[in-house]
Amino acid sequence: MATDGAARAGLLETRRGTIETPVFMPVGTAGSVKGIRFQELEGDDLNPRIILGNTYHLWLRPGVETIKQCGGLHRFISWNRALLTDSGGFQVWSLGDRRKITEEGVEFRSQLDGSARFLSPEISMEVQAALGSEIVMVFDECAPGQAPLEQARRSMELTSRWAVRSRQAFDRLQREHADLGRIADEIPPARPGFARSVSLPGVPSLSGAQALFGIVQGSSHLELRRESVERTVEIGFDGYAIGGLSVGEEKPVMWEVVSRTAPGLPAKQPRYLMGVGTPEDLVEAVSLGVDMFDCVLPTRNGRNGQAFTSRGKLNIRNSQWAQDQNALDESCGCAVCRRHTRAYLRHLYISGEMLAGILLTHHNLAFFLDTMRRVRQAIRSGQFREFRQEFTARVNSGVE
Amino acid sequence: MATDGAARAGLLETRRGTIETPVFMPVGTAGSVKGIRFQELEGDDLNPRIILGNTYHLWLRPGVETIKQCGGLHRFISWNRALLTDSGGFQVWSLGDRRKITEEGVEFRSQLDGSARFLSPEISMEVQAALGSEIVMVFDECAPGQAPLEQARRSMELTSRWAVRSRQAFDRLQREHADLGRIADEIPPARPGFARSVSLPGVPSLSGAQALFGIVQGSSHLELRRESVERTVEIGFDGYAIGGLSVGEEKPVMWEVVSRTAPGLPAKQPRYLMGVGTPEDLVEAVSLGVDMFDCVLPTRNGRNGQAFTSRGKLNIRNSQWAQDQNALDESCGCAVCRRHTRAYLRHLYISGEMLAGILLTHHNLAFFLDTMRRVRQAIRSGQFREFRQEFTARVNSGVE
Repeated sequence: MATDGAARAGLLETRRGTIETPVFMPVGTAGSVKGIRFQELEGDDLNPRIILGNTYHLWLRPGVETIKQCGGLHRFISWNRALLTDSGGFQVWSLGDRRKITEEGVEFRSQLDGSARFLSPEISMEVQAALGSEIVMVFDECAPGQAPLEQARRSMELTSRWAVRSRQAFDRLQREHADLGRIADEIPPARPGFARSVSLPGVPSLSGAQALFGIVQGSSHLELRRESVERTVEIGFDGYAIGGLSVGEEKPVMWEVVSRTAPGLPAKQPRYLMGVGTPEDLVEAVSLGVDMFDCVLPTRNGRNGQAFTSRGKLNIRNSQWAQDQNALDESCGCAVCRRHTRAYLRHLYISGEMLAGILLTHHNLAFFLDTMRRVRQAIRSGQFREFRQEFTARVNSGVE
Repeated sequence: MATDGAARAGLLETRRGTIETPVFMPVGTAGSVKGIRFQELEGDDLNPRIILGNTYHLWLRPGVETIKQCGGLHRFISWNRALLTDSGGFQVWSLGDRRKITEEGVEFRSQLDGSARFLSPEISMEVQAALGSEIVMVFDECAPGQAPLEQARRSMELTSRWAVRSRQAFDRLQREHADLGRIADEIPPARPGFARSVSLPGVPSLSGAQALFGIVQGSSHLELRRESVERTVEIGFDGYAIGGLSVGEEKPVMWEVVSRTAPGLPAKQPRYLMGVGTPEDLVEAVSLGVDMFDCVLPTRNGRNGQAFTSRGKLNIRNSQWAQDQNALDESCGCAVCRRHTRAYLRHLYISGEMLAGILLTHHNLAFFLDTMRRVRQAIRSGQFREFRQEFTARVNSGVE
């Protein structure tokens, strides 16, 4: 692993390929990175080595039985690279009044058909085993960004007890070979369920067929975050996520939590900042020692007409682009920037053409993924500090 | 040109490539074949040599000034193959009560902003010159499918007078070099505005920078159709379209009109059946001597969850496909059928994922375009009759 200040550049080994970190993982909520075909994803412009799937959405639809019948999520969606699945905890938390949290788990009504549903650490682990992702997340509870101390403490402690149950259920499911993401050819008969075990010196290596990541909670209370780190690391996971951020707290609060929490996580294991953020956020978090990210911004904002560029955000709806024959981002080499003008993209967007969302999403993902490529290169060459300064200055200079 | 019965297989030369006929032209209404990126269109699966743009839609938005500023439609949308533009007549006719037809042209209110607009043969020709398409259509009036004789006669006669005005305006615009689709490098200075003039023996060749096609009208009245053919051919065009079908008349009526009209059109020029139809319709019309087609069915129905297959239509919403791990069409070699299952495509559709429409549209276009490839091959090898029988029997056998 290369380091530059607190920033780290490493390799994460999975049974479905090696992932260079720091890494941005495009979000494939319901088994599709919205608007992007898999062959596009696999092309040179994008080429992510891992994408994210949402357990909550896939559990409700198409449901575990269909996923099982189709041989796990990789086969169902036809994606042979790595997958990370979240636990469903965050989505259930987002339901607000429509869910009831008990020690056992969460009762709620399905947003799809109103049916009563129940999600727990054990059920989340079962679903994620059926999905067969390379990286499984523990089932956690997420407190609001401004939660007062006592509420945040109760939530963090519940998350900690659920982490123990997640770990136990996960280990049992691995022993039972419930993981549907196994690659049959690569598994010696004597050790069913185990990943190929390539591991470079000093590099985090995933154990078992699936890896399990713990999640640190504690809202904006630093003492709770510290305690959550201790408890989570004590249980022992393959990697550690910082959860419960980007959920309504002020930005400085988020950075204080990240900067005080990340250094306390085990240095040799991957650190994942869940649900964050803009390209500037990613670069900032890398400087604090974070390795992994996921966020819906490039896809969702792309569909809503917003492009991320090397000079900041560009809203394609603006009439100033009506006859602009420049590319979205002059510094970008993606297929959209090579071929299309702002004038055409604006026309597509204003006309309600699907292609607007498709092309803006493609560019945004290319920009996020290329930024991370440049981040890794800068760390490896010991120039991350300079990179970060230049990147931030340029992003804040404004689109012309 | 090869013939097999009345069916013909030929080559249509344009300044932007040679088009093998019979040909299906995907519809790119507002400058985008809905849901399909141009690089996908240009790939082996689809690879159409010509697509269609709608003058009416592009005239209203982004408007002629933007198109001109951006150097014509090819440059605006970044498509360097051939384009055919319709005249706007059909869209204006579709407005129903919201338009008023006079000898001069059509007054109507824009569907976008309610502003008063006026379209005429001269304006349509000016817009199509700015668009710079390879094939321009005359501005016509379309009578309803069940129009009584007198109404249909008045409409046909108006279309005929508008055809004369279209021809005159088109010729003037060509002389004035108003055509923005010119390829500068290939135009000798002495003959500005002229296409490269490659022409094979017995093959229809487009004259001038743009070609102009006439449109035969006359509703379901065969005597009016006959008269319309005479009048239109007398004016003289580079090709001839049969318009005013698929507008509410019964299917047998349509086939009677096509079978009695197509043979009366000049044998050495292309014949274009506008707005038709299903794959079966295309094969049927080819057997009657038609060379060119456009239709929104593959794109629109794809977005609505309907796949066209070698065994007929398949509605991806149906619950019978929920765990079906077959391809949409076992006989299809397109990227969607090579990679994805019906179960996954159904999941995407039910989940409201954009990717459902993208993938179904891709398959549908692949099926239409591949069918036309096979049609051409069958005609050239003198086996079109057998091909047609087998194709029709298979399409009617039903999806399993």
